Amino acid sequence: MPARLHNNIAALFAPKAVCVLGASRDPAKIGHVLLRNILRAGYPGKIFPINPCADKILGLDSLRKPADIPGECRPLCLAVICLPAEQVPEALCELGRLPTRAAVIIGAGFSESGERGVELEEKLAAIARDFEIALLGPNSVGLCVAASSLNATFVEGGLLPGYTGFFSQSGAFAAAMFDWAADKNFGFSSFVSLGGKVSLDESDMLAYLADDPHTKVIVGYIEDVSDGPKFLRCAHSATRKKPVILFKAGRGDGSFTGSPGMRVSQDLAYDAAFTQTGVIRAKEIQDIFGMAQAFSFCSLPVGPALGVVGNGGRIGAVAADSCLETGLVLAHFSDKTIERLETCLPSYVSARNPVDLMARATAARFAGACAAVLEDPAVNSMLLFAAASARGELDGLPHAVSSLPNPEKKPILACLMGGAGVSQARRRFFECGIPCYPFPEPAIKSLAAMYRQSLWKDNHMPVEIGYRHDKRRARAAIEQAAAEHLLELSGYYALEVLSAYEIPCLDAKLARTEAEAVQIARHCGGPVALKIASPHILRKGETAGAALNLEDPDEVRAAFADIASRTGPERGQANISGCIVQAMAPKNARELVLAFNRHNSFGPVLLFGLRGYIRLFDDLSCRLAPLSLDDAGDMLREVRAFPVLAGLDGQEPVKLTALEDILLILSQIAVDFPEIQELECNPVLADPSGANVWGARILLSPAALENLR
Amino acid sequence: MPARLHNNIAALFAPKAVCVLGASRDPAKIGHVLLRNILRAGYPGKIFPINPCADKILGLDSLRKPADIPGECRPLCLAVICLPAEQVPEALCELGRLPTRAAVIIGAGFSESGERGVELEEKLAAIARDFEIALLGPNSVGLCVAASSLNATFVEGGLLPGYTGFFSQSGAFAAAMFDWAADKNFGFSSFVSLGGKVSLDESDMLAYLADDPHTKVIVGYIEDVSDGPKFLRCAHSATRKKPVILFKAGRGDGSFTGSPGMRVSQDLAYDAAFTQTGVIRAKEIQDIFGMAQAFSFCSLPVGPALGVVGNGGRIGAVAADSCLETGLVLAHFSDKTIERLETCLPSYVSARNPVDLMARATAARFAGACAAVLEDPAVNSMLLFAAASARGELDGLPHAVSSLPNPEKKPILACLMGGAGVSQARRRFFECGIPCYPFPEPAIKSLAAMYRQSLWKDNHMPVEIGYRHDKRRARAAIEQAAAEHLLELSGYYALEVLSAYEIPCLDAKLARTEAEAVQIARHCGGPVALKIASPHILRKGETAGAALNLEDPDEVRAAFADIASRTGPERGQANISGCIVQAMAPKNARELVLAFNRHNSFGPVLLFGLRGYIRLFDDLSCRLAPLSLDDAGDMLREVRAFPVLAGLDGQEPVKLTALEDILLILSQIAVDFPEIQELECNPVLADPSGANVWGARILLSPAALENLR
Repeated sequence: MPARLHNNIAALFAPKAVCVLGASRDPAKIGHVLLRNILRAGYPGKIFPINPCADKILGLDSLRKPADIPGECRPLCLAVICLPAEQVPEALCELGRLPTRAAVIIGAGFSESGERGVELEEKLAAIARDFEIALLGPNSVGLCVAASSLNATFVEGGLLPGYTGFFSQSGAFAAAMFDWAADKNFGFSSFVSLGGKVSLDESDMLAYLADDPHTKVIVGYIEDVSDGPKFLRCAHSATRKKPVILFKAGRGDGSFTGSPGMRVSQDLAYDAAFTQTGVIRAKEIQDIFGMAQAFSFCSLPVGPALGVVGNGGRIGAVAADSCLETGLVLAHFSDKTIERLETCLPSYVSARNPVDLMARATAARFAGACAAVLEDPAVNSMLLFAAASARGELDGLPHAVSSLPNPEKKPILACLMGGAGVSQARRRFFECGIPCYPFPEPAIKSLAAMYRQSLWKDNHMPVEIGYRHDKRRARAAIEQAAAEHLLELSGYYALEVLSAYEIPCLDAKLARTEAEAVQIARHCGGPVALKIASPHILRKGETAGAALNLEDPDEVRAAFADIASRTGPERGQANISGCIVQAMAPKNARELVLAFNRHNSFGPVLLFGLRGYIRLFDDLSCRLAPLSLDDAGDMLREVRAFPVLAGLDGQEPVKLTALEDILLILSQIAVDFPEIQELECNPVLADPSGANVWGARILLSPAALENLR
Repeated sequence: MPARLHNNIAALFAPKAVCVLGASRDPAKIGHVLLRNILRAGYPGKIFPINPCADKILGLDSLRKPADIPGECRPLCLAVICLPAEQVPEALCELGRLPTRAAVIIGAGFSESGERGVELEEKLAAIARDFEIALLGPNSVGLCVAASSLNATFVEGGLLPGYTGFFSQSGAFAAAMFDWAADKNFGFSSFVSLGGKVSLDESDMLAYLADDPHTKVIVGYIEDVSDGPKFLRCAHSATRKKPVILFKAGRGDGSFTGSPGMRVSQDLAYDAAFTQTGVIRAKEIQDIFGMAQAFSFCSLPVGPALGVVGNGGRIGAVAADSCLETGLVLAHFSDKTIERLETCLPSYVSARNPVDLMARATAARFAGACAAVLEDPAVNSMLLFAAASARGELDGLPHAVSSLPNPEKKPILACLMGGAGVSQARRRFFECGIPCYPFPEPAIKSLAAMYRQSLWKDNHMPVEIGYRHDKRRARAAIEQAAAEHLLELSGYYALEVLSAYEIPCLDAKLARTEAEAVQIARHCGGPVALKIASPHILRKGETAGAALNLEDPDEVRAAFADIASRTGPERGQANISGCIVQAMAPKNARELVLAFNRHNSFGPVLLFGLRGYIRLFDDLSCRLAPLSLDDAGDMLREVRAFPVLAGLDGQEPVKLTALEDILLILSQIAVDFPEIQELECNPVLADPSGANVWGARILLSPAALENLR
């Protein structure tokens, strides 16, 4: 991003003046509601309604046109544009010439409304680029910035200040979040509706909010990513500074091509992008709300051990059930903690985790037990569960718990199930900075996300490895295939590309005579297979016209003669060039798929899985290129079938480093050859001594092919 | 259940009089709160406070003792007991002698408080049994019955009448549900806190509520099931009449024993019990609330096709994402529907499912689009999604939508995200009988559960098959093993049991001479394996001291001699009895596990899975015995690895009926031999021609063994 644009984004969030183009005296018009909201939120700078016909709007002097804005206010002025779509480009140009450098376009009628709208958006993008305007929208609900006392949205109500920096690609979702937050007294540092993203997008928000001192956690709702590499850079940098929680709609959108088992949803690329940049993905919409609370109120837990204190009997077990699925564990209390708990509890109750304080527990009993649990060094976080039956006692609970000594800032979350009977206590928990949930499961989910974030922060820096390779040889193979008008390369050409990058491939050699066949077979070392020469590798299990398991020279000779005689005349070929001789698959080898495919936003996506598990269980791991060494290791370990590689039932493990190498080299090929749309090594046979590619397929992108010709 | 007890349960739900033992003038006492709640709810029958010291309580004449209740009121009187635990048995006896036949014990201090409490509970159970008292509790929060205008709980607030019959084993959860419902104006036909279940339990509630004309859907929270067979009977009968939704806490409780891959959670038995009886399992606590609304307001959808109408742009895609995971599908609109939608929509918007009415859609536009979607024959249900931005229009929406013609009663669900801005519209949806959710995912989950329920209702009756078997021969093998003090049977004895039930087992015969070995090998038909005689079956892959893949008589003879010479002297055995000769495993056979284990509440649980997938993916299906033919078929098809059986990549499918037979026979063995704790056929080799048990292990229950000796 140019440095000046970055400054202009600052003007968006902290303008010295605000002008509203299309300000109106009609309370039904958005241009009125917006001006009213700005006034109500107490924006301290100058406010200029702009309307060619009105003199005064909402008590303010109205200007006729942007050029009437006093010169000293112009550069750091935020322009809020509530004009009909057709008028916007002209107005934006006028603003740009002033110069005004930050604008938000509220109105609709752009690309969502057909071709004409698409043209308008292209114009806006060009204007914003030329004048380096920090431009939000079109179709934005507006933005709020607590530190600037700015509410430039047309949503009813107002927002409280808080620690969450929020952005949303969907105006509907932004409005819902606004309304929810007002209801819950949940506050924001910044609240931004991105709208149509002709200029500023989610990546710009990540970059800005990461350095915004008022923002403790970044939360976003996106439907796509405008610029993959930019997103990756901004997200990776932001998550090192603060937690980033994103929800992405459209899990079912599109799928990658590939062999049948590999037709997986393109949404996997988002999983990979989020995983590699440390973004926490909210899986359900409600998770956004739950996690925003937890992250903005609490410090991160330093470990997975949870203490549960409640009066809900076995409902504590529900929290324990959720732990099972999230990577958290129930803490083992120390003897000292158990002693302390026993003083809080009736004599007949055992002091174990989850702690059950019994139905009619007092606030004092709660506080005593919470203190004991919180002080146990084995406890990293605490969930407080209170049922409505303890009602009278509930209202005092938030203050009692938030006053407990908690020098290590262990996160405390509360769960209160019910309705009106718990609503006051819920509000108080909020006021005391303790997030409070209506059910145990979302509380545990949020805590688990916080724990993962703490692991991410402690993550060391990635290691990258360069491999020896002959790029020119690989390019020659691709160009030769292109010259033959091949879009899909298998066999010889695919092998050539892999071999040029020193990926170990099945040794398959052409024997033109029986004697050559015997010689090659000897070189292979074990039993071999023979098949008629063709540029295709013999896939495991593919036996037509082939002789398998040949152990001695006589067998090889006989097979050669047989294949040559059988296949030659029948196929009517004048020149039989010979037989391909190759080693048989090692026994107990495991069959894998290592591949990459290309995603529209994120570019090359590496895929890894075990054949036979991918299709049945979607058991696939996924990372974006370029891979680091850690990424490659994680890809292997992340599939659920990993124990098959690591050696089940005393079986010897396969050589994992050989697989990491192949993944890393594929990553490099993906980067080196943008013209390769898709590369699938399938099967790759791995055993304790190494890994070999037994079959491979390369798909060139038609566009790239055009260029090569 | 004895017929009289059934009548007495009716007295619990529709008492002609109510007495409160331990009624109190002190507003802090439960005995006061309870009496006050009964009065406030307007119970029309006689109310008798009972207190040895007071004359008047809350304006009512107080009786000194139960015997003072007038004779004509006694039999159909409900006694609410708010006495200290120690006094309860005596009081219950007194009531029983009156005779009073329905009682609820509110107080705590029973089994949860130690040994003395356990004794008290045993006494209560005996008294209830002797007098056939319909007894709730102890430790109950009480019960509410709308049709009787009865609120005999100590919870603050009151409940509205509705269609949901609710019970909870947890008092804390009951209180939370009560509070939530009061807040949401959600009503109940009956609301029952089961408490300690010394007498009445979840099964009794299912039996009663299934026939209760005021109840349209049954919802329950349980922590365990008191009596497995009783539950199965009651649940199966109830779900044929109305939907039953249960949440069970404690997913991680206990695991079955078995070989390493088979150590799965005992909670699986609940999954099986719910599946086989048609109970809908709520996986998260919030699902209870969401599903209760949907089932009590809506009719069931007749198919999976959903129409989505909303103004939230791509948020509709979130609903579509959820459909992917639940078995619902997005409906394909007819041309007529698309035409009609186009008249509701701006010209530039395409009319596809999910329908996006654009941000500022009016109530009229919503209604028009909903009418079109609802009338499309391809649509089975509709989700209406409205974002807060359409606020002014939202409040009119519930009435507009609920007034649409809907002759087929297709279920309509609504989703409104936000806070105060949507709360009025949410309430109105409720009042119009349209369930309304704060997020799209729970709405889709509820709809999916309704669709599954509609399938269950249409389910035909199960088919049971009797198989030929020789029970006496199986019993003899078990007794012989018992005589040898074997708890675990493998090899010969296990085979004997399976063979007695005509389960096909690997043919493994003892050859005492080379000649015999050759003869047996010839009989096997294909390549054979030889191993030293032992009562254990040769497992596939087990090669120590064995010769494999012997194809001709010479090889067999040589192997026999070799094994006899090699193994005999080394092991120092005086009598080498010979070699076991058995067929080699067929090529391309698939390796399966078919087993049963025993659950404390539900008895024998059948388990099925493919080796290699069970451990890695928990890919196991589970049903309770006795199995029906459909159950057996479902077990095979339910595992995710089923395509491996059905034939991946053109592979021939295995003979599924052979596997169904084995499962059905195992079910029969489980029923016939309660002394078998666990039986595992592992591996079972299946191919297109049939299935054979290649290894089996039977674990006897120590108690049963004791009896056999």
